[in-house]
Amino acid sequence: MAPSARTIVVVGGVAAGASAAAKARREDEQARIVVFEQGEHVSFANCGLPYFVGGEIADRGSLLLHTPGSLRDRFNLDVRVNTEVTEIIPARRLVRAKDLKTGEVDEVGYDSLVIATGSRPVVPTFAGAKSRNVQVLRTVPEAEQLRRRLRSGHAKRAVVIGAGFIGLEVVENLRRQGVEVALADQADQVLPPLDPEMTVPIEDALRSLGVEVALGRGLRGFIQRGGKAVAAELEDGTRVEGDIFLLSIGAVPDVDLAARSGIALGPTGAIAVNDRMETSIPGIYAAGDAVETVNRVTGRPAWMPLAGPAQKQGRVAGANAAGRSMTFKGAYGTAIVRVGGVVAAKTGLGEGECRAAGIDCRVAYNYHGDHAGYYPGSQGMFIKLLAERRAGRLVGAQIVGGRGVDKRIDVLATAIAGRMGVTDLEDLDLAYAPPFGAARDPVIMAGMTQANLQRGEIDGCTPAELAGWLGGADLQLVDVRDPAEWAGGIIEGAVTIPLPELRRRLNELDPARPTVIYCLSGQRSYFATRILKNSGFSKLQNLTGGFLGWTFYVRSRERSAGQVPRPAGAVS
Amino acid sequence: MAPSARTIVVVGGVAAGASAAAKARREDEQARIVVFEQGEHVSFANCGLPYFVGGEIADRGSLLLHTPGSLRDRFNLDVRVNTEVTEIIPARRLVRAKDLKTGEVDEVGYDSLVIATGSRPVVPTFAGAKSRNVQVLRTVPEAEQLRRRLRSGHAKRAVVIGAGFIGLEVVENLRRQGVEVALADQADQVLPPLDPEMTVPIEDALRSLGVEVALGRGLRGFIQRGGKAVAAELEDGTRVEGDIFLLSIGAVPDVDLAARSGIALGPTGAIAVNDRMETSIPGIYAAGDAVETVNRVTGRPAWMPLAGPAQKQGRVAGANAAGRSMTFKGAYGTAIVRVGGVVAAKTGLGEGECRAAGIDCRVAYNYHGDHAGYYPGSQGMFIKLLAERRAGRLVGAQIVGGRGVDKRIDVLATAIAGRMGVTDLEDLDLAYAPPFGAARDPVIMAGMTQANLQRGEIDGCTPAELAGWLGGADLQLVDVRDPAEWAGGIIEGAVTIPLPELRRRLNELDPARPTVIYCLSGQRSYFATRILKNSGFSKLQNLTGGFLGWTFYVRSRERSAGQVPRPAGAVS
Repeated sequence: MAPSARTIVVVGGVAAGASAAAKARREDEQARIVVFEQGEHVSFANCGLPYFVGGEIADRGSLLLHTPGSLRDRFNLDVRVNTEVTEIIPARRLVRAKDLKTGEVDEVGYDSLVIATGSRPVVPTFAGAKSRNVQVLRTVPEAEQLRRRLRSGHAKRAVVIGAGFIGLEVVENLRRQGVEVALADQADQVLPPLDPEMTVPIEDALRSLGVEVALGRGLRGFIQRGGKAVAAELEDGTRVEGDIFLLSIGAVPDVDLAARSGIALGPTGAIAVNDRMETSIPGIYAAGDAVETVNRVTGRPAWMPLAGPAQKQGRVAGANAAGRSMTFKGAYGTAIVRVGGVVAAKTGLGEGECRAAGIDCRVAYNYHGDHAGYYPGSQGMFIKLLAERRAGRLVGAQIVGGRGVDKRIDVLATAIAGRMGVTDLEDLDLAYAPPFGAARDPVIMAGMTQANLQRGEIDGCTPAELAGWLGGADLQLVDVRDPAEWAGGIIEGAVTIPLPELRRRLNELDPARPTVIYCLSGQRSYFATRILKNSGFSKLQNLTGGFLGWTFYVRSRERSAGQVPRPAGAVS
Repeated sequence: MAPSARTIVVVGGVAAGASAAAKARREDEQARIVVFEQGEHVSFANCGLPYFVGGEIADRGSLLLHTPGSLRDRFNLDVRVNTEVTEIIPARRLVRAKDLKTGEVDEVGYDSLVIATGSRPVVPTFAGAKSRNVQVLRTVPEAEQLRRRLRSGHAKRAVVIGAGFIGLEVVENLRRQGVEVALADQADQVLPPLDPEMTVPIEDALRSLGVEVALGRGLRGFIQRGGKAVAAELEDGTRVEGDIFLLSIGAVPDVDLAARSGIALGPTGAIAVNDRMETSIPGIYAAGDAVETVNRVTGRPAWMPLAGPAQKQGRVAGANAAGRSMTFKGAYGTAIVRVGGVVAAKTGLGEGECRAAGIDCRVAYNYHGDHAGYYPGSQGMFIKLLAERRAGRLVGAQIVGGRGVDKRIDVLATAIAGRMGVTDLEDLDLAYAPPFGAARDPVIMAGMTQANLQRGEIDGCTPAELAGWLGGADLQLVDVRDPAEWAGGIIEGAVTIPLPELRRRLNELDPARPTVIYCLSGQRSYFATRILKNSGFSKLQNLTGGFLGWTFYVRSRERSAGQVPRPAGAVS
């Protein structure tokens, strides 16, 4: 095999960049491969930073998955840290790179180039944003700085701005360190990527951890005193005091270099690439948080700055840069977060995303234990499953619960990738032993619920639909839970008939009126709906998600209607 | 809606029977539905019995998912326990049922009938099998009897015959109660449904729990003294002493009633049914352990007596018995067991099953942590993934490890159900946060390993193939682990060159010789194989599963070659 003498340049040495360079080396042993990283560290565990702050990851060393030396030893890479690529000159196939310590500029020619510049945090420009106790958490030095601040004992109270996945991880870990925490987000909910009602248990988990949560109000600025921020000021004037302020209000693709070099951006603002991860300029590939990818459910461009897609894109870009031909098909936006004992996860599209994509989706909720109820320690999970109304193809799922949420979201992500329909879920053959699951796994039950709707065995309504009908004179609302459960509240206007009494009390109900049945979760009311349907009731709806889903819905509506709880420690 | 006045009779009231009756009621509110159960309990948690014995399930009541009363209240079922259906007379569409307490015989006509007679344990007929301290564990009374015996303090040492899924659950739970346990199986391995090398860690887990394991010798009989068994005698004359003896040597479909009634059995000896769960006699359906189903990988009849398929079959049989039309497509034989901290699971076909089905499968092993290595507490899992050699379609998977095995087997079961290929696994978008997984999940890594083989990026060999080549004069075997790892053993004849030194020591190897590379698990050796392949080596194989897989293979071969460890407490 003749040496190729190809030079491959990779700009960025963290997730996608390191993957690209390592894959390129596996494809081409003779190539010269140069990796430029403007930061101090390559291939560090950025997803681990919150846990390093919280102390679960005790050792800084475990965050450094590779060093320039280990990348040289294993992959024969020429890694240059603290070096910024300032210019790409496609016409001459070279990059200019500046050593950030010495200021020296080097020119390196390339045969192929991989851009993996990642994303950068959104840092607001308003008053006080540059205070020395206002920071983001994106790098190992930033994590170390935060840890030092916590250890100094001066940071007794933190304010986290931004309740997305990373913001919540930061909050959990700050609490772990015993720091008082207030959390603010401009959205009416925590975890904006999830549908609002699914985030209510996460909000509860935050409060259980003692976190003050202020939603629906963006950040206006920081009140400073002596160069330090002393309070975050929200849009409504509320001031949330703190010793330290963490900004986690999102990120944007870092496309400056690409744009300056004439590389086309896509509609999301990230670098446009084809399925070979090639940009608009031949020979230049891009991967990771800087690129836009395809949402595999909609087939449309999407920006999904997540570690899983980043590493896969890097691998594909690296292979192609080295002369192979591999493709990356896109992603589903699968993500998960733990807050205390509560876990929330998502894959595919949410309800709003379906609407935006013009997908007529059917929503169903299920509530089940993670394993057989007769085996101790079962933890409940609330599942929202979205399917195309006509064809039944799965388009998205969200789950909030405890143990086993991660398993079910991965099974559903796999089912969506397999383009399965709701009836396929009924037939899944999942592993069952009492410690691990149930003869009918929650995923299978969720599939059955959707399939029953799909086949027209019953009609279902969502809490939002019920809310629209409440108060209508004609509506007949029936609660079939047990009397003991009514103490926790019933939906206004409901007739209460426990399921075991329903058959002998049928005469209390009017078969001609539009009727909605509910129980706690939707399962007993499904049984009840079947009884009524087979007894001549024709205008029947089973409330999907039951009283539980109703409660989550109502609480999420209250928030967006402005009944936003104020943080206990707020000064206004 | 006019009353149908249909009578549906269900024979058997545990998993499949209870599901069938409940579904039939949901379909037909007016039908008369009669359930006959020869035992004392309906719808009990048979999979929970070992855990009740072990005390994890403390309360007998939690095993009883339903009572005749609760089935009447919820589903309006006429449930008759302690009643055996002795005869089905299809010509007259009636069954004869005998009350086992009073001896009275009743005739009940049916419009449709569901047979859910389940399976019965294999109980050997030889000497001593009826001793009062020899028992099986299939019913609540048997579990209670065993618990009483343990509590009496007279059962200090138990012998479990049969190391299948249930046998291992019994062993684990007996140890939990502090009982000394010896385990014997006629197979050369524990967990015979799994491929032999995958069971080595389970055997180790059993020994770590202090269990004596005697493999490769069937049971010849029991030595009795005063009506009590005092030892199990194995085929080779070994006597294994004990105070109590648990038989878990398998089950057979209980088809006596069906066969007597002229219902056709299939090639497996279980009741033959179509995809509507209908037997050879119109109007008679069957479901659960008594029927044979379709292995969805091979499309061939298979007997899979598992709770998941049983409940799904029951649901389908019940719907069809009530006049609907539903289908059951078959199963994949997904199963899981926990022994101490070790978990083993399987879905689809094993290597031997592929051979038997005429499927040319490619085997690859992977070893990965259940979550990111930088986050503490990661537990390793060893994955065997089987794919059709040419098309790459997944046909089976087995995993042994700790936490997270259940998740990965379910993801793989879903992928097989989706008829995915190995390259589809590379593209899966699974949920990643440090406590739950890795940016490249073990399933994705396993897919990449198989896909690399599929695309011909590298060639791989299995431990069995390597074993056939060892000692050949020409073979060049290279161990690329770190020096610290060699202390635990190397494969005989291997040249040792740590991966980081490989590039500069290429001259120590001969590019013309057939070369096998290995490391601990197969990943570093993959890197090494790529280096050598791109450096002119042409006859290269990466040892899949590495030294770890090699060790498991060698140990499983030693067992089947007769080097069977004797139980420590054996008397011969």
